[in-house]
Amino acid sequence: MNRKQLIETIQQKKTFLCVGLDTDIQKIPEHLLSFEDPVFEFNKAIVDATLPYTLAYKPNLAFYEAQGWRGLLSLEKTIAYIRSKGENIFLIADAKRGDIGNTSTQYAHAFFGQENPNHNVDAVTVAPYMGEDSVKPFLAFENKWIILLALTSNKGSADFQRLKYNDRYLFETVLETSKQWGDATKLMYVIGATQADMLTTVRKIVPDSFLLIPGIGAQGGSLADVVKYGMNKDCGLIINASRSIIYASQKEDFAQKARQEAALIQQQMERHLIMNNTKIV
Amino acid sequence: MNRKQLIETIQQKKTFLCVGLDTDIQKIPEHLLSFEDPVFEFNKAIVDATLPYTLAYKPNLAFYEAQGWRGLLSLEKTIAYIRSKGENIFLIADAKRGDIGNTSTQYAHAFFGQENPNHNVDAVTVAPYMGEDSVKPFLAFENKWIILLALTSNKGSADFQRLKYNDRYLFETVLETSKQWGDATKLMYVIGATQADMLTTVRKIVPDSFLLIPGIGAQGGSLADVVKYGMNKDCGLIINASRSIIYASQKEDFAQKARQEAALIQQQMERHLIMNNTKIV
Repeated sequence: MNRKQLIETIQQKKTFLCVGLDTDIQKIPEHLLSFEDPVFEFNKAIVDATLPYTLAYKPNLAFYEAQGWRGLLSLEKTIAYIRSKGENIFLIADAKRGDIGNTSTQYAHAFFGQENPNHNVDAVTVAPYMGEDSVKPFLAFENKWIILLALTSNKGSADFQRLKYNDRYLFETVLETSKQWGDATKLMYVIGATQADMLTTVRKIVPDSFLLIPGIGAQGGSLADVVKYGMNKDCGLIINASRSIIYASQKEDFAQKARQEAALIQQQMERHLIMNNTKIV
Repeated sequence: MNRKQLIETIQQKKTFLCVGLDTDIQKIPEHLLSFEDPVFEFNKAIVDATLPYTLAYKPNLAFYEAQGWRGLLSLEKTIAYIRSKGENIFLIADAKRGDIGNTSTQYAHAFFGQENPNHNVDAVTVAPYMGEDSVKPFLAFENKWIILLALTSNKGSADFQRLKYNDRYLFETVLETSKQWGDATKLMYVIGATQADMLTTVRKIVPDSFLLIPGIGAQGGSLADVVKYGMNKDCGLIINASRSIIYASQKEDFAQKARQEAALIQQQMERHLIMNNTKIV
């Protein structure tokens, strides 16, 4: 999905919600455990329930890898299922990858390569620590995106990302430097919702870029604050909620509760889009 | 494997060589492609050929993920095969993971959890950018190791790792800060062989820690330089070569050529251990 299609989808669906498919087999409702692939059954039900309210889905690879190769099969089936629902869904592999060039090329093929259609997503999250040649191989794929970690939602973001030297945080240098590698049609950034006070600084450096914002919901970030400081004329935000939606209930009504939760966020987002004068159709 | 066992294995086998199993299906000898699982066949042959000369094996996850769930199955079979060869092999998952605490716990289970024995390695490489809570979940497992990226072998290491503020490189801060999270019995560091001039600086901060050193061979780093500036009284080095060993030949004699290449490096390493007065048994 390219930038134009992404913006049009936001306008059409009136949402910039991303549902994080962090599906933990320890947390899914008990009645699903008798299925051959409980994780896939859970994901299917969550997708069916939340699709009208959702711009993007973001499976985090860790939850699938924790189940070994069977977990990766559950993920591939989930991706194929989401793709079967139509074109206008933005799919993010939250993988936080990054390696030397030769190896990052392999990761890029894992997520973007045509040889593996059921593993084919629109975007992958990438860690910046190894620098330009660890990031560039992902940029070689047309209509695919890198979402670079800049300022994450966790406490540990203080350890290095918010180290301040020469009056500038490390994450600001990450934003400045990476702008030379790719523009707002190829690169997005992860900025934690718990860091809304930093969004003004972020927008000074990357005014046009989309930001993937985790940390709404279970992690305590505020949607209103993120919109206030982070939204641009195209919206420019993809806001993720995982646990607060997918585990809204851990009983048989889990999908219904997830739908309610997603619908509630979508309504708030629609109001924010209208107040922002983002064109909606 | 704990620190004592690791040091004893170096003394017994007189090697600190790690063979990188970066098995690329595009590069393995053609005659293997008729097997049901060519990657596994290749790995088995490489392990059989190099085992007498090798302290550690390091599959890089990217090469397996590029083949989807089947690639992960090849990896799990490879790990089980290496484990079937006996206890004194140090197994590193080169994954460069790292996520918020809740998610890093899932990654830690993927690599260290007993529930997944064929995916059970001794160490995993972790990226530091997300800070303490992204690293800590891996430290909760007994006799397991984190190998934290500090100064990598690639050109892009200049972008952030070698940013200098207040007379100190970022990678020095990563070393200093992470020392508070775990000591030399739990934490190792990745330092690229191409950065041998920095090893004196590294050893001032972490004199006792093991260093995983990639970049010998195809990437051009020098074994003698790494030993000169990086070896400590326990050896303290695990030096990786991947492409120069596993693709020493791409014909039917690939395993024999890999053996020759590994044996040559082991002989050099044995001389360095003797010159260092490392106890050998």
